[in-house]
Amino acid sequence: MSKVVVYDIIKQMILDGKLLAQEIKNNVKESAKRLKKKPLLACIIIEGNSASEIYVKSKQKACEECGLSSKVVRLPKNTTQKKLEKEIENLNNDKDVTAILLQLPLPSHLNSVSAINKISPEKDVDCLTYKNLGKVFVGEYDIAPCTATGIIRLLEKYNIELEGKRAVVVGRSLLVGRSVATLLEKKNATVTLCHSKTKNLKEITKEAEILVVAIGKKQYIKSDFIKKSAVVVDVGINRENGKIYGDVDFEKASEKCQYISPVPGGVGPLTVACLMENTFKLALKNNKN
Amino acid sequence: MSKVVVYDIIKQMILDGKLLAQEIKNNVKESAKRLKKKPLLACIIIEGNSASEIYVKSKQKACEECGLSSKVVRLPKNTTQKKLEKEIENLNNDKDVTAILLQLPLPSHLNSVSAINKISPEKDVDCLTYKNLGKVFVGEYDIAPCTATGIIRLLEKYNIELEGKRAVVVGRSLLVGRSVATLLEKKNATVTLCHSKTKNLKEITKEAEILVVAIGKKQYIKSDFIKKSAVVVDVGINRENGKIYGDVDFEKASEKCQYISPVPGGVGPLTVACLMENTFKLALKNNKN
Repeated sequence: MSKVVVYDIIKQMILDGKLLAQEIKNNVKESAKRLKKKPLLACIIIEGNSASEIYVKSKQKACEECGLSSKVVRLPKNTTQKKLEKEIENLNNDKDVTAILLQLPLPSHLNSVSAINKISPEKDVDCLTYKNLGKVFVGEYDIAPCTATGIIRLLEKYNIELEGKRAVVVGRSLLVGRSVATLLEKKNATVTLCHSKTKNLKEITKEAEILVVAIGKKQYIKSDFIKKSAVVVDVGINRENGKIYGDVDFEKASEKCQYISPVPGGVGPLTVACLMENTFKLALKNNKN
Repeated sequence: MSKVVVYDIIKQMILDGKLLAQEIKNNVKESAKRLKKKPLLACIIIEGNSASEIYVKSKQKACEECGLSSKVVRLPKNTTQKKLEKEIENLNNDKDVTAILLQLPLPSHLNSVSAINKISPEKDVDCLTYKNLGKVFVGEYDIAPCTATGIIRLLEKYNIELEGKRAVVVGRSLLVGRSVATLLEKKNATVTLCHSKTKNLKEITKEAEILVVAIGKKQYIKSDFIKKSAVVVDVGINRENGKIYGDVDFEKASEKCQYISPVPGGVGPLTVACLMENTFKLALKNNKN
């Protein structure tokens, strides 16, 4: 095959998150115009984590793109739990604030679960409070965690059937693995959740018709972990020497699977796009615009 | 083999829920003696469901056994959502009430999710409010749904290792399947949740080292669904001509597996025992006795 043919084949199987993210943001922009009041996303950042700074900036930029307001509450690296929770309380009580996002991870001296659960569930845009996660668990939710939502949206965009399919999720973080496993189950997939204590991981991933990987280990999932014609979603963002790598060995894996999400340009942009959508949904729900 | 030998072998592999339930109740009884105030479990029952009447009676009886107080709030079959939620509100505000249990299922004109979420999370003894389920989901819980808790206790009683084991749960009800799948994951099992939309169920259950079945179909799981030397927990209670059957074909299955819970005498008694324990735990937590 010529290089052009190979390129065309690979192009056809790419789950293009960048494209979908733009679509979602365009929709939010159009829909937000019709609201009486501009929704406002407040991000809390604890200083001293450069990745967090990048993420918060990209969230602000996306707000601008979508015609939403944003503000950033900055707290020093050595801030106390009490001060952090006081800031959250202030944002809960501020009628101008639609949505509150606490940028994770927090420094180790702070308790993130406690802080998250100080956010009013009505403003919990990342859907990480107990109450909102419980709603996801029960299947009665308006919003779900952003990355997990983005993954489902990406699969749906490409008309990938989920009902009755065997899905395997590798990684059980609250933000991604555990949440997307639950959402896949709500779509009637048969889901297996794998994690660091899983034995014979390869045997299990090889059964997956849908494989979602979110472990944060550069190119850990090789071609021999993947069932032929599987759909592979790579959530990993591993930075090395200024380059970004996924959790999946893209080059080899793409020879085997039917669809695959690239890194970058796959799930990454969808997290922010779904955050915009969640902000809009909270505005719609709470202000009854 | 003589009948006696066969009987002895079967006896060795039985997960005896009755025995463990008695142990749990005895512990609650001993521990409750030390509380300043007797915990009170309030059960709400909507009249007209004979199975519910039996369950509520057995809960009252268990309270007596454990030295706990109980009361029953009876509402007529045609009660309204508003009246039901008003009763829940009254029990929330009643300082004498430690724990509130809404006996399920409700008649079809009532919304059980809405009613359950009117129960104060501090008194939600069945752990079914969004907030409490969210805590289970996150892994930060004091109590978990009773039947799911009972299953884990039963496995632990027999020193069955869960970490790294492949567990398959069949049935995704909130009360049992979905909850026990989450608890097994917290114990570091690799869990697959199967349900009515699962294809090739048999292929999946045959991979299970731990198999939990809660589908409410008499003897649906035959011997050929089961991996050799698996541990099988049967949560089914199917009544037919005055006899009770599990979801597993016990006789054939017991020839193949390492351990199996019988019906009756397996998980059934543990639900009530764990309800007693949860009532005690709520008393301890909320009254700081």
